[in-house]
Amino acid sequence: MVDDLASEILDATYRALCDHGYANLTVQDIAAEADTSNASIHYHYNSKEQLFAAFLDQLYERFTDRVDSPEGDTAYEQLDELLQILLTTDADPSLREFRTAMLELEAQAPYNSTIQERLTDFDEFLIERLRKILAAGVDNGEFDDDIEPSRDAEYLATTITGAHTRHVAINQSSDQLYDTITRYIERHLLADEQPEVGR
Amino acid sequence: MVDDLASEILDATYRALCDHGYANLTVQDIAAEADTSNASIHYHYNSKEQLFAAFLDQLYERFTDRVDSPEGDTAYEQLDELLQILLTTDADPSLREFRTAMLELEAQAPYNSTIQERLTDFDEFLIERLRKILAAGVDNGEFDDDIEPSRDAEYLATTITGAHTRHVAINQSSDQLYDTITRYIERHLLADEQPEVGR
Repeated sequence: MVDDLASEILDATYRALCDHGYANLTVQDIAAEADTSNASIHYHYNSKEQLFAAFLDQLYERFTDRVDSPEGDTAYEQLDELLQILLTTDADPSLREFRTAMLELEAQAPYNSTIQERLTDFDEFLIERLRKILAAGVDNGEFDDDIEPSRDAEYLATTITGAHTRHVAINQSSDQLYDTITRYIERHLLADEQPEVGR
Repeated sequence: MVDDLASEILDATYRALCDHGYANLTVQDIAAEADTSNASIHYHYNSKEQLFAAFLDQLYERFTDRVDSPEGDTAYEQLDELLQILLTTDADPSLREFRTAMLELEAQAPYNSTIQERLTDFDEFLIERLRKILAAGVDNGEFDDDIEPSRDAEYLATTITGAHTRHVAINQSSDQLYDTITRYIERHLLADEQPEVGR
């Protein structure tokens, strides 16, 4: 029961963030969204900072679950699935609101080491996931062997980050970037001749 | 004299933004930085929003001056100069502070059409500048003729945006991305054989 409420508070934090943004968010907003009291939130989380640390930890777990095992029989299919998860927007109508709140957190990171550490975890996990897919694709001959998996993974992750920022700042949907990045992969990462094995 | 003070207020806004960030910035902070009074700022700018619109207009003028005519005899040299301007950080020790304030503004954009319109102008200007350089390089044979200048320009601009976001959020210097993007251009955009003319 206690755990249920702690978890419901984190879910309410997500919805309240989408509605109010981070800068204006109060514990009261979250309490209203969770249909509970300020006191009960303070019972579970000592401070707004502790609540946000727990919220980002939960978000990180969901993020890693979502991107850890992209479906697909080939490295290319897995990469494509991952990019669809990260860039296409149809699945979630409140995605821009959520990305806006995340961008506020990113702008807060220089002043808040708890946030910065968590954001670093997201970044590193994504780059490592991309790196593994690229390395596997180089090994099995799907991808060009002049790929440097670490460097190219960071390049892709940087571009994905930029697509999210532009989605918020100038309302440029990231779906268009999904098309462009797909074209980049087909032109520049895929080997000219695809292996028979594993396809 | 009046114009001098209006202009000094905008310069002070830049410094105050770097010091305080956008969310916490008050007209009083800007007045202190400009060594003038709140009343004098309100005389020149009716509201904080109007002040920020003027500030972003000035920033846009400086940005366009800075990126409009990159030096270089070839399209590749011009592209490289532009990327150095946008990604290397040695020139300006307060760059991360400034980028942090810009990221706050980007996260505000969904709630503020004045900011969003200005940010869109920055984005469009940069993409158009990159597009022209890529198109010129395709025309004179420096760049691969399978480049699509509009699409590849937007891809580069998205990656540059992502490098700025990561610089703020996780303190990942954008200089490393300059190296990676240079490698990307050499591997994927430059034509295999460079033309003699124009080099």
